[in-house]
Amino acid sequence: MAMVTSPHSLLLQNSNRQLLKNPTTKPFNAFPLTSTRTTYTTTPKRISITCAATTHVQDRPPTPAQSQDRVFNFAAGPAILPENVLRKAQSELYDWRGSGMSVMEMSHRGKEFLSIIQKAESDLRALLEIPAEYDVLFLQGGATTQFAAIPLNLCNADDPVDYLVTGSWGDKALKEAQKFSKPKVIWSGKSEKYTKIPAFEALEQNPDAKYLHICANETIHGVEFKNYPTPKNQTGLLIADMSSNFCSKPVDISKFGLIYAGAQKNVGPSGVTIVIIRKDLIGNAREITPVMLDYKIHAENKSLYNTPPCFGIYMCGLVFEDLLEQGGLKEVEKKNQKKAEILYNAIDESKGFYRCPVEKSVRSLMNVPFTLEKSDLEAEFVKEAAKEKMVQLKGHRSVGGMRASIYNAMPLAGVEKLVAFMKDFQARHA
Amino acid sequence: MAMVTSPHSLLLQNSNRQLLKNPTTKPFNAFPLTSTRTTYTTTPKRISITCAATTHVQDRPPTPAQSQDRVFNFAAGPAILPENVLRKAQSELYDWRGSGMSVMEMSHRGKEFLSIIQKAESDLRALLEIPAEYDVLFLQGGATTQFAAIPLNLCNADDPVDYLVTGSWGDKALKEAQKFSKPKVIWSGKSEKYTKIPAFEALEQNPDAKYLHICANETIHGVEFKNYPTPKNQTGLLIADMSSNFCSKPVDISKFGLIYAGAQKNVGPSGVTIVIIRKDLIGNAREITPVMLDYKIHAENKSLYNTPPCFGIYMCGLVFEDLLEQGGLKEVEKKNQKKAEILYNAIDESKGFYRCPVEKSVRSLMNVPFTLEKSDLEAEFVKEAAKEKMVQLKGHRSVGGMRASIYNAMPLAGVEKLVAFMKDFQARHA
Repeated sequence: MAMVTSPHSLLLQNSNRQLLKNPTTKPFNAFPLTSTRTTYTTTPKRISITCAATTHVQDRPPTPAQSQDRVFNFAAGPAILPENVLRKAQSELYDWRGSGMSVMEMSHRGKEFLSIIQKAESDLRALLEIPAEYDVLFLQGGATTQFAAIPLNLCNADDPVDYLVTGSWGDKALKEAQKFSKPKVIWSGKSEKYTKIPAFEALEQNPDAKYLHICANETIHGVEFKNYPTPKNQTGLLIADMSSNFCSKPVDISKFGLIYAGAQKNVGPSGVTIVIIRKDLIGNAREITPVMLDYKIHAENKSLYNTPPCFGIYMCGLVFEDLLEQGGLKEVEKKNQKKAEILYNAIDESKGFYRCPVEKSVRSLMNVPFTLEKSDLEAEFVKEAAKEKMVQLKGHRSVGGMRASIYNAMPLAGVEKLVAFMKDFQARHA
Repeated sequence: MAMVTSPHSLLLQNSNRQLLKNPTTKPFNAFPLTSTRTTYTTTPKRISITCAATTHVQDRPPTPAQSQDRVFNFAAGPAILPENVLRKAQSELYDWRGSGMSVMEMSHRGKEFLSIIQKAESDLRALLEIPAEYDVLFLQGGATTQFAAIPLNLCNADDPVDYLVTGSWGDKALKEAQKFSKPKVIWSGKSEKYTKIPAFEALEQNPDAKYLHICANETIHGVEFKNYPTPKNQTGLLIADMSSNFCSKPVDISKFGLIYAGAQKNVGPSGVTIVIIRKDLIGNAREITPVMLDYKIHAENKSLYNTPPCFGIYMCGLVFEDLLEQGGLKEVEKKNQKKAEILYNAIDESKGFYRCPVEKSVRSLMNVPFTLEKSDLEAEFVKEAAKEKMVQLKGHRSVGGMRASIYNAMPLAGVEKLVAFMKDFQARHA
């Protein structure tokens, strides 16, 4: 760890134009924590201001100058990717390491791509300390395809299975499982608008269930498991959709029979789904399982039964490399905790101007939903933030309000800027 | 059309090293058609030779200097992509058109990505003149997922369906359909090692069949339909896997109920599957259909039910744009015919040194399988070609020999270079 000064430039052309149109609006100071308070003029001239926010960050190369063109993208997924990963991908897009071709052009059975997918798997195994008795699969079709693949591979049509439903995604997994098994909802947070996770002891698990399914982090509702229930079913199997908190913190893989995650939150672009499955669970797919949903086919063929999403896997590999270079998931978790703390504190200390509906003990480090007391200001909040290059802050269409997704790749500076903006917005609208 | 001189540089460092090791090997002249015959020395110095091959090509900007670093990639898929498309993708990978983010970071519901997917669809519709009564879907999971989706959406478990099997891919489609329907093989080329397509009149189609399925181009065996059978089944439905000749020539879409294609041959990277389906066929998926295989879900949600493979769709869009700029599929087909003609002629005029097993009338314009009379030289052929930067010429592991895939993006210069190499190789080994 080193004390470094991270400069951050802010171009104010748009906001100044706004100020001209609406001279009663107070100017927004993106960095009120800086020692020198800059007062903005309302001339439409393009001004660049610099703020020196002193923060603890890892030893990393300084942010390149071009990053001033970047927005802070708070989208829930596809989502922000690490700047250095994008730079690397750009530099080798046309010619991957002297191969004379792009990764997108490589035969998935050629030595070049094999080296890419093998390194991606190996780095992921290192990151999550995946035990040898687990297979790692790089698949297509998103978590939604896994909603079907799981019952099709792990139980029969009449088998009971347990679903703990803590948000929209857990509910979607349940609904798909109803086609292929007899799922029982052992707990649902729906009546409380998905703001809680129950005490595990109180759960009435079905001893005959073939597995217990959870969604480890609910992207829409911002509810995250901080620890995991012990399955009391006959198989002892716990299964988790980790799409939106995958690789955001260390996880004891051995507690799970199967973990699955769409890549497009923390580890890559959309189009790649990662499945980590205990080997003894493989090989029991029902006859009516489409071949592309059969784990055995993919495990036996090392994810190369058909053409995999090669470029997406390559991008995931670059992200895994980056996470390892950051010091692994313990370090990554610390950064995520820090970012979340700043943001939740800003909400909780706003005297009700901002509200996060989620119970404090289960608030997500990744997806922070919040509302405004004056809900008619929410559209204005989102609009003004976008002008300040903080985009995709609108809440999911099913719940409204705002949501800031602050995945691994969101820099601390992005959260700091958001918090500064929130305080300024409140000052202007309280 | 313009007469242009397309310079092509060849770096011979490796091959010269090879010559030093084996001084009896005759030097390979990559471009025997040029007026000036260059005699190579055997010094290990890096030499760059230039060849001016005069050919008819479309009016396009000259190939950039960097293309000398490119290999000619004859892979069957993922495959070569247009150089200018890769350059464009590279230039905007980090910041897509001033949006401040990469396409890989964009919310699939944001205005930026919506503009990308809508333009991709619109350009594809223009290219293939897709009638309004067809939906275009951008999906995941490759053609292999469609092998299951088709029977699951278009018939019931006990329904008869007809499969015309002209190669490995048609056979794979058949095997998957056996899980979900009662397919009948109305003709198979297996006993003749998949080198033919039957006369359509002679086919005994089942009048009760729910559809007739063909694979329009067999990637492994190099067999391509030049016209299409008229379905004589009760629904009049013809369905085609066009993965390896999609957008390589104009197609009368109205002859088909459904066309599907993995993108990774002619139109993009792997991870995107395009389905063109007549709207009246949508909405009949069986209850046991995984939601991600239900065409209705994808059609109703304009391919955005779950997170689509955004970057892959973007790449397809760039390719569609490029194909339109080339003058559309009629022009593209002419180029493909020219390339294929040169290569098949070289094989047929080799007096048996090279052999293509496929019946002339159904030879693929995309995938050209060939063998050597002296089969023990095949490994040497592939190895020497790779040294000359012509890669992935080894035939599919299931059939052996060689295969040159010459998709849309393979430049004429690549085929010319291959043919020149073939002649030289023959001269040295006849």
